[in-house]
Amino acid sequence: MLDADPGYSAQLAVYLDGTKVIDLNGGPDVAADSVTGVFSCSKGVSALAFGLLVQDGLIDLDAAVARYWPEFGRHGKDVLTVRRLLSHQGGLVGFPGGIDTEDYNDLAAVARRLADATPMWRLDAGTFGYHALTMGVFVEELCRRVTGVTLQEIYNSRIRDPYAVDMFLGLPEPEEPRFRPVRYADMPDAPFVDPASLGGIAANVAGGNLLDLPNRRSIRAGGSCSGAGVGSANGLARVYAAASTGVDGLDPFWRPDTLAAMAQEQVWGLNRVSGETGAFAVVFMKSHPLMDFGSAAAFGHDGANGALGYADPAYGIGFGYVPAWVEDGGTGGRGMQLSAAVRKAILANR
Amino acid sequence: MLDADPGYSAQLAVYLDGTKVIDLNGGPDVAADSVTGVFSCSKGVSALAFGLLVQDGLIDLDAAVARYWPEFGRHGKDVLTVRRLLSHQGGLVGFPGGIDTEDYNDLAAVARRLADATPMWRLDAGTFGYHALTMGVFVEELCRRVTGVTLQEIYNSRIRDPYAVDMFLGLPEPEEPRFRPVRYADMPDAPFVDPASLGGIAANVAGGNLLDLPNRRSIRAGGSCSGAGVGSANGLARVYAAASTGVDGLDPFWRPDTLAAMAQEQVWGLNRVSGETGAFAVVFMKSHPLMDFGSAAAFGHDGANGALGYADPAYGIGFGYVPAWVEDGGTGGRGMQLSAAVRKAILANR
Amino acid sequence: MLDADPGYSAQLAVYLDGTKVIDLNGGPDVAADSVTGVFSCSKGVSALAFGLLVQDGLIDLDAAVARYWPEFGRHGKDVLTVRRLLSHQGGLVGFPGGIDTEDYNDLAAVARRLADATPMWRLDAGTFGYHALTMGVFVEELCRRVTGVTLQEIYNSRIRDPYAVDMFLGLPEPEEPRFRPVRYADMPDAPFVDPASLGGIAANVAGGNLLDLPNRRSIRAGGSCSGAGVGSANGLARVYAAASTGVDGLDPFWRPDTLAAMAQEQVWGLNRVSGETGAFAVVFMKSHPLMDFGSAAAFGHDGANGALGYADPAYGIGFGYVPAWVEDGGTGGRGMQLSAAVRKAILANR
Repeated sequence: MLDADPGYSAQLAVYLDGTKVIDLNGGPDVAADSVTGVFSCSKGVSALAFGLLVQDGLIDLDAAVARYWPEFGRHGKDVLTVRRLLSHQGGLVGFPGGIDTEDYNDLAAVARRLADATPMWRLDAGTFGYHALTMGVFVEELCRRVTGVTLQEIYNSRIRDPYAVDMFLGLPEPEEPRFRPVRYADMPDAPFVDPASLGGIAANVAGGNLLDLPNRRSIRAGGSCSGAGVGSANGLARVYAAASTGVDGLDPFWRPDTLAAMAQEQVWGLNRVSGETGAFAVVFMKSHPLMDFGSAAAFGHDGANGALGYADPAYGIGFGYVPAWVEDGGTGGRGMQLSAAVRKAILANR
Repeated sequence: MLDADPGYSAQLAVYLDGTKVIDLNGGPDVAADSVTGVFSCSKGVSALAFGLLVQDGLIDLDAAVARYWPEFGRHGKDVLTVRRLLSHQGGLVGFPGGIDTEDYNDLAAVARRLADATPMWRLDAGTFGYHALTMGVFVEELCRRVTGVTLQEIYNSRIRDPYAVDMFLGLPEPEEPRFRPVRYADMPDAPFVDPASLGGIAANVAGGNLLDLPNRRSIRAGGSCSGAGVGSANGLARVYAAASTGVDGLDPFWRPDTLAAMAQEQVWGLNRVSGETGAFAVVFMKSHPLMDFGSAAAFGHDGANGALGYADPAYGIGFGYVPAWVEDGGTGGRGMQLSAAVRKAILANR
Repeated sequence: MLDADPGYSAQLAVYLDGTKVIDLNGGPDVAADSVTGVFSCSKGVSALAFGLLVQDGLIDLDAAVARYWPEFGRHGKDVLTVRRLLSHQGGLVGFPGGIDTEDYNDLAAVARRLADATPMWRLDAGTFGYHALTMGVFVEELCRRVTGVTLQEIYNSRIRDPYAVDMFLGLPEPEEPRFRPVRYADMPDAPFVDPASLGGIAANVAGGNLLDLPNRRSIRAGGSCSGAGVGSANGLARVYAAASTGVDGLDPFWRPDTLAAMAQEQVWGLNRVSGETGAFAVVFMKSHPLMDFGSAAAFGHDGANGALGYADPAYGIGFGYVPAWVEDGGTGGRGMQLSAAVRKAILANR
């Protein structure tokens, strides 16, 4: 890929059975120690931390959200379980009038607004749609309600620090010198997206270009679970390995039953927001023909820049891919090609 | 569009916050006072009148259809609520052997046949499919059962007359001189559609070319709620404005809670009849990536000729578009392009 | 088709109201008495036999599978009814590590493994996906549980022998000289299918090329209901006619209520395994825009080689098509073209 496109810059890392086997950094816009925005890969990392709350018995996926967050149970939302809300079935994809993106750093305020909102589709019809910016709010708020501390604190104390994961939900000031801005080509003639349409609301198009968000210090310092994480491919690969296989002799932080519960596919079909085919576990994406990142056991998440992080228990893999320039994701994209190449190599050596 | 296609003839009308702001009539085949067939836009207009029955407490959307229409509750149809039947979930898309289209004017007979029919798919599986010709029968029959009069009478007395709407469910003889026939290009090599397939039954292909129906006096005089309405773009725009914002100082005929109930999305996914992606509220279409006519709040209906009528409460819009020649609808079509242009202009002036 | 492609070899047979009206054998690779593998058309033939168990009251479609097969009710599978399992909703599409295909001949062992498996998707979400190799196991095992004999024995004694059907679930040794191998072109650059993905598991790609399976004597002797049937187009057409209209003066082996129950559409939407649109009755495929083999009343099944067998009660048809070389199926394929031509001819002569 570097031969065909000299400007191509990306990181790729793979752990196999808990040991790092690939850690590549190539192209002019990355360095071995650089980190950048990974967009919605942040959702997957957050869900790894959230799984600890399920594992600890603090959260029952089949309980009503309102059991932990009473104000949420209004306007018919009392029927929503944690399982359904976190598999994109809640119909609360954003705010019709848009929202200043910085406001996502004021979690209490935005959670209050979501608790007061009416679902945008009928909840009994099995509809799901991608909650691009609000999913992290649900995860963070539920964590605060049952633990009294932020999800970022849980992540730092139980995952990032003990497992030495180079992936941040809230980039600390001392790490700033390693940050490389997300680069993207201008799109001259983008089709009109109505900011008040479901797609426009979900992407908060009224709030400006999502692709530039991690390039704002305030956003990446806030570290919203929906998409403001910053890290390296090694960080992504390592955190998924740490959850599922353990790394470098450390036990995995998830028990097998936690993994089974969190990685189980919850919904499959047409994503109401994008109109495209999708499959979700609890927060995590599942692999499917249009997003073929792994086996039936795999769980992970991609990002708007084409980044990808996942664990695949069928292979013992933790995988991370982070491009410097925004590129297309999904089947056919570079992340999927690299993922397929890794799995083919493992199969060839079995 | 007129420059690129000199024969292009269409009407476009927009109301903003209850005031007409656009009323264009262009091309050789329309006049400022001409009216023509609007096909399934008629469903939307009928649903505006039906909403008054919900508003008046005469119809409970969650009640079984059989509560109002006892004969309907046979062959497993006792489980169908008004909500489900009117959001295309009933599996009663037509008659396997076809039906003489004129017979749709004998509502009692056709309602009797539908009451006696068995659903064409299993009702507990969440399937929906477009009821192109039978939806209006359901709406009309339910109206007669709870009011004793026709839906057309309700429409005329409570909407068309008081709000001076240039849109007819049953074109009166004196208006005939204003009628312009629907024009369409012959399709030389149409693929075979089995008249006994779900698509063939729903479109009643055994009954001949649907596109020619409004050109028969008997059909447009009958004014079937499914698709025999005749009107102008101004009529379509005005009736949606009258429902949602009021027009010219008159209060809207729907209360906000009526609008919320009728415009709520009920189903989303693959339309069983067409195989294409669709989203429906109670009768109304909802905007989605393949039919992007408005915001998440918008509700309306298109017609087989590419006509479009909708209200978009996020913009205070009533919108009507009626082409003289049958053209493609959906995302990319002229109606959608004009709808997007109108919304962009409003956003630019906010 | 023979003019355009001199190597094209196929059989086509049609019964109309119980009488054979078409029986064509064309091209160098078939003979009037030749038989070959029909792949998943075997599922449809098996389901015709299974319908007799429903007709006899031995199987209640709405009963839990575990009522007949107690070991099956583990790992949350106690909620699965026969209806849901046999309409591809069970999430048991195969074995993550693959399976030696010969092992499908050891039904007891493979049924035991499936009874012990955990569904690959959440059962309450309405998901379905094509059970390419396991569907036949369910059908066979249920038959053995309620009758004490194999489904193949039921098929032979109540269908194949009395109706003289040239279609075998387990090809007897004396018929071997009539067998012609399935022919297929090599696919030089097939994209990677992860053997542990849902699609890879369902197709058992770890077990080798499915297209070659009927060419192994052990496989076609075993006659797995999923796909190891061998027959002629005449055999396929005749067995569907025998079920629905009767043949040559013999009464149909299904009662009308059996046909109604077995042919009712159960699921519609995106197939979780292939990502494509699908519709299924109890085992049988239903016709839809991407697989337009018949009317709304039709039921049947295609095979991986492009073979097709169905009954269409709206036309009184039993239809069979078997190509010698593997070709594309679905809308646009030769089987669908021939099916449409037959129905058009019948309509033209009514």
